[in-house]
Amino acid sequence: MSATSAAWLARHLGYVPADAALFERALTHRSAASAHNERLEFLGDAVLNLVVAAELYERFPEADEGALSRLRASLVSGSPLARVALHWQLGEALRLGSGELKTGGFRRESILADALEAVCGALYLDAGLERARPLILQLLAPALEPLVASDALKDAKTRLQEWLQARGAPLPRYTLEQVSGESHEQHFTVRCDTVEPVASAVGEGSSRRRAEQIAAQKVLERVSG
Amino acid sequence: MSATSAAWLARHLGYVPADAALFERALTHRSAASAHNERLEFLGDAVLNLVVAAELYERFPEADEGALSRLRASLVSGSPLARVALHWQLGEALRLGSGELKTGGFRRESILADALEAVCGALYLDAGLERARPLILQLLAPALEPLVASDALKDAKTRLQEWLQARGAPLPRYTLEQVSGESHEQHFTVRCDTVEPVASAVGEGSSRRRAEQIAAQKVLERVSG
Repeated sequence: MSATSAAWLARHLGYVPADAALFERALTHRSAASAHNERLEFLGDAVLNLVVAAELYERFPEADEGALSRLRASLVSGSPLARVALHWQLGEALRLGSGELKTGGFRRESILADALEAVCGALYLDAGLERARPLILQLLAPALEPLVASDALKDAKTRLQEWLQARGAPLPRYTLEQVSGESHEQHFTVRCDTVEPVASAVGEGSSRRRAEQIAAQKVLERVSG
Repeated sequence: MSATSAAWLARHLGYVPADAALFERALTHRSAASAHNERLEFLGDAVLNLVVAAELYERFPEADEGALSRLRASLVSGSPLARVALHWQLGEALRLGSGELKTGGFRRESILADALEAVCGALYLDAGLERARPLILQLLAPALEPLVASDALKDAKTRLQEWLQARGAPLPRYTLEQVSGESHEQHFTVRCDTVEPVASAVGEGSSRRRAEQIAAQKVLERVSG
């Protein structure tokens, strides 16, 4: 069976493991053998969580903690992970006990999601976080890329800029109109102007960035109707 | 205030950050400024989780997924983290708004635990996981070391070995007595013998290791009364 896990790794990640037995174990359900994947799943859950958290932290610099947590949950909970596992045909490389085989365990969401986590744990042990990270992001791409590309999750300034660029229009201008309050409790007022079409709106917030986002959102609503 | 976070890092971790502003932010509660620590806390929670998961995975090779999860929860939940933060006097380096200052926010468990997580996030961004890991383990040592040292969490083979060594007695001997069942559903029977004092017990399980642990546990109960 080790050919199967090694073949899966080679085919889908182009990865040749230093310790092939680790990946054999990652793809072994507890119903199949005593050397099963539950400890690797424990580790892999944490690896996946960090890789996703760091990626979202970097890709969504304007998102607050609540938005980041919601985005992460939409990626690393059971169903999305199971869909990712199905995408990569992980079920075909899984070792299951005869009972699970008969009842279609290789299609069960929890078994697939757990196995994907275990593979991430094995990648971490085999390669270290820095080398494992791009491989894990590659595995997650079917779930991560649509999320990152979706307009709803881009910040308002980016969406406004892209809307104008798509029309060959000049970029918007942001002007800091007012700063009030004491040094650590400041309040910012920013104006956003576009020239083509002509539009203008004011945003307020506890940081200059947030005030800009709010102004951009208002302008976007006006120009895009 | 940046002197405070830099001084705290230097005093307790001997660490000089590449990006001091990152640590200033990590120690800034949302009540104090708009550049607060909530996004870093989101990231740091995942960093801490992985560092602890990997450490437990390595230190407790016999622990199953359930035991590892319980151990981790006993370390990375709010109260233990707050105690760790208190140990390192993190409250003294915290920046809080005037309201939180008046009501003793620098002693509040959630604020302390969140700030500790944010520091872990900043260490990860500033140094990368491999360099951040020993620093984070150093921070966690007040909670981690007692856990690792506690007899209750060591596996039975280790405890039996230490009990015998403390008495200058020879190490126990494990003999595989029987293996039954088909290749992926095998059942193991192992005997454990000690000579000083003379004791013997048999353990059974789905792996040789587990059978040895059970036999060791029985012998330990007999010899240590």
